[in-house]
Amino acid sequence: MRRTMKILCSKAEILNGVNIASKAVPAKSTMPILECIIIQVTDNTIKFITNDMELGIETMISGTIIEAGSVAVNAKIFSDIIRKLPDNDVNIETDASYMLTIQCEKSVFTIAGKSSEEFPALPKIEKRDALVLSQFSLKEIIRQTVFSISDNESNKIMTGELFEISGTEFKAVTLDGHRISIRKISLKEEYKATKVIVPGKTLLEISKILSGEAEEEVHIYFTDRHILFEFSSTIVLSRLIEGEYYKINQMFSGDHETKFTINRKVFLDCIDRATLLIKESEKKPIILGINDTVLELKINSTIGSMNEDIDIIKEGKDILIGFNPKFLIEALRVIDDEEVTIYMTNPKAPCFIRNQEETYIYLILPVNFASAR
Amino acid sequence: MRRTMKILCSKAEILNGVNIASKAVPAKSTMPILECIIIQVTDNTIKFITNDMELGIETMISGTIIEAGSVAVNAKIFSDIIRKLPDNDVNIETDASYMLTIQCEKSVFTIAGKSSEEFPALPKIEKRDALVLSQFSLKEIIRQTVFSISDNESNKIMTGELFEISGTEFKAVTLDGHRISIRKISLKEEYKATKVIVPGKTLLEISKILSGEAEEEVHIYFTDRHILFEFSSTIVLSRLIEGEYYKINQMFSGDHETKFTINRKVFLDCIDRATLLIKESEKKPIILGINDTVLELKINSTIGSMNEDIDIIKEGKDILIGFNPKFLIEALRVIDDEEVTIYMTNPKAPCFIRNQEETYIYLILPVNFASAR
Repeated sequence: MRRTMKILCSKAEILNGVNIASKAVPAKSTMPILECIIIQVTDNTIKFITNDMELGIETMISGTIIEAGSVAVNAKIFSDIIRKLPDNDVNIETDASYMLTIQCEKSVFTIAGKSSEEFPALPKIEKRDALVLSQFSLKEIIRQTVFSISDNESNKIMTGELFEISGTEFKAVTLDGHRISIRKISLKEEYKATKVIVPGKTLLEISKILSGEAEEEVHIYFTDRHILFEFSSTIVLSRLIEGEYYKINQMFSGDHETKFTINRKVFLDCIDRATLLIKESEKKPIILGINDTVLELKINSTIGSMNEDIDIIKEGKDILIGFNPKFLIEALRVIDDEEVTIYMTNPKAPCFIRNQEETYIYLILPVNFASAR
Repeated sequence: MRRTMKILCSKAEILNGVNIASKAVPAKSTMPILECIIIQVTDNTIKFITNDMELGIETMISGTIIEAGSVAVNAKIFSDIIRKLPDNDVNIETDASYMLTIQCEKSVFTIAGKSSEEFPALPKIEKRDALVLSQFSLKEIIRQTVFSISDNESNKIMTGELFEISGTEFKAVTLDGHRISIRKISLKEEYKATKVIVPGKTLLEISKILSGEAEEEVHIYFTDRHILFEFSSTIVLSRLIEGEYYKINQMFSGDHETKFTINRKVFLDCIDRATLLIKESEKKPIILGINDTVLELKINSTIGSMNEDIDIIKEGKDILIGFNPKFLIEALRVIDDEEVTIYMTNPKAPCFIRNQEETYIYLILPVNFASAR
């Protein structure tokens, strides 16, 4: 049914909605309609809808509805125009041939829109048994794990993040073959056992939209093929990755031989400095010598060499062990504690950075450094 | 004479010096020595020296001199290392084979340096008759003119900026074939008549180093081939562009037919919005219709159309005229006045944006828009 559409909203409100919806617009698509935002106006709601076939977003904005109707408009052009308008009320209307007029103060833009009919609708999800988290918790969990997904699309499962719920425990896991990141939080209520693999890209986009407020909630719903996040005036719907996640439990058995505690920031800055000497192509490891009260970090490259001592509190054996500095940096960066405790067994066995309660565990495989010395 | 060198300076002091000196380091050079910074330590000065053969910089830093000497070190590696050091005192020393050790707190870097002997020394300039400006004035003049140099190296003179001094007037001019930018300031004292063409790139780099303080001075010295800027603890020496600058005076004769005054920010924002509709490849002009009390801006492109009315105060004839929006934007952006006055003659003659005192004049050629409507 073709109807013309007419709304009046503040620029700020439109811009906010467009910014949210744009997260599910593909940069380039073989289906031009996917590069559009759908403006869908009913008698009592104004919605922006986008869908890149993996991720779909629907966000509601407030404004005055003068005439219901809907139109598809190129997301990039529309958001560029809105962004540059004066901070005032904006009139948006379409005519019968989907020409879109955007008017604000004395400025009038006219651009061609399209019918929204060929736009792929978001699948209908039955909302049952919401898993409830704060926006803060979800945003933090994502930040603290998503960096170690793999970007190698040939192994789809590694590009995703495991969400595993059992009782009141929510566990998120990512891995890329060299490391595993695990974060656990407690839910306020028990939830039925659930295990799904969420695309990492979805989580990255969601974390950009989440406010991060501890007082605001996210409701999460699962189906066999989808995960639905509902928060503020927004719904984000993502396909799940199909398949069985890796069994990682056997990686966490066995005892450590060395345990030490180190100031996180000092350690991080030191590794960061050391990476100056590594060219992208070289893949040089940094070498950590854990002695009684000191960690000695060493690196030797074609550019030069560096060494630095850091005070530690150690239990167990001395050890000399090599690492890809990037893996240590990325884990240390997302931990909030001032001091971290690191567990090692031998120069070929994984090392663990974890707290006592195991609300976070970062497993990192060492690198052979015999040739690097 | 090969001597080892040893100094102790604060990280902040070294970093500041390195940031200044790095402005004359070429990104890539066929002479690797030019990618170096020279650390030159005498019995009472520590200097960083760089030279890309067009531009040379010498900046002095304060610190404790333990042993005089000099060394050449890759500017990028050195500045990366300094930047990442803790905020504390830094020990820098070389051994007899130019190995450079940089030590700060418990961190020790060792990188290979080179003899500074093959580094091309900056030409000695006799400092006579300083032209004195405030750092603020020089930085402003550069900002307000340098955007309209040409980047076409086949016409060397257009890549430069004319500095013309006569009596107490300092005039800076740039042009690129489509527009001319002129800025004049008054000097505190008379200076002998001088006319030089300074490379635009030099001025861009200098303006990054200038503090912009009205209370701090710059001393400028001229020779036949060079211009020397001396300020704070820094000397910047640049080659001049040889040749005769364009005679531009005849462009400024003749009377206008239309004169109008417009709010600069409102006009600028409006043109900025209009450019959304122009793809880089299209080169569409914006069309200004100057009527009695209103400027009507129009643009039509493959993306869509826009029009907007802006209130003006006009004298003279109505006019319809087209412009490359970029040229208007760049001029309007650097003017500080709230209201600007624009003079036009006909749709093919240059338009002028200037103030009454003519301390700034921006000449912009219009574009044929017959095909654009």
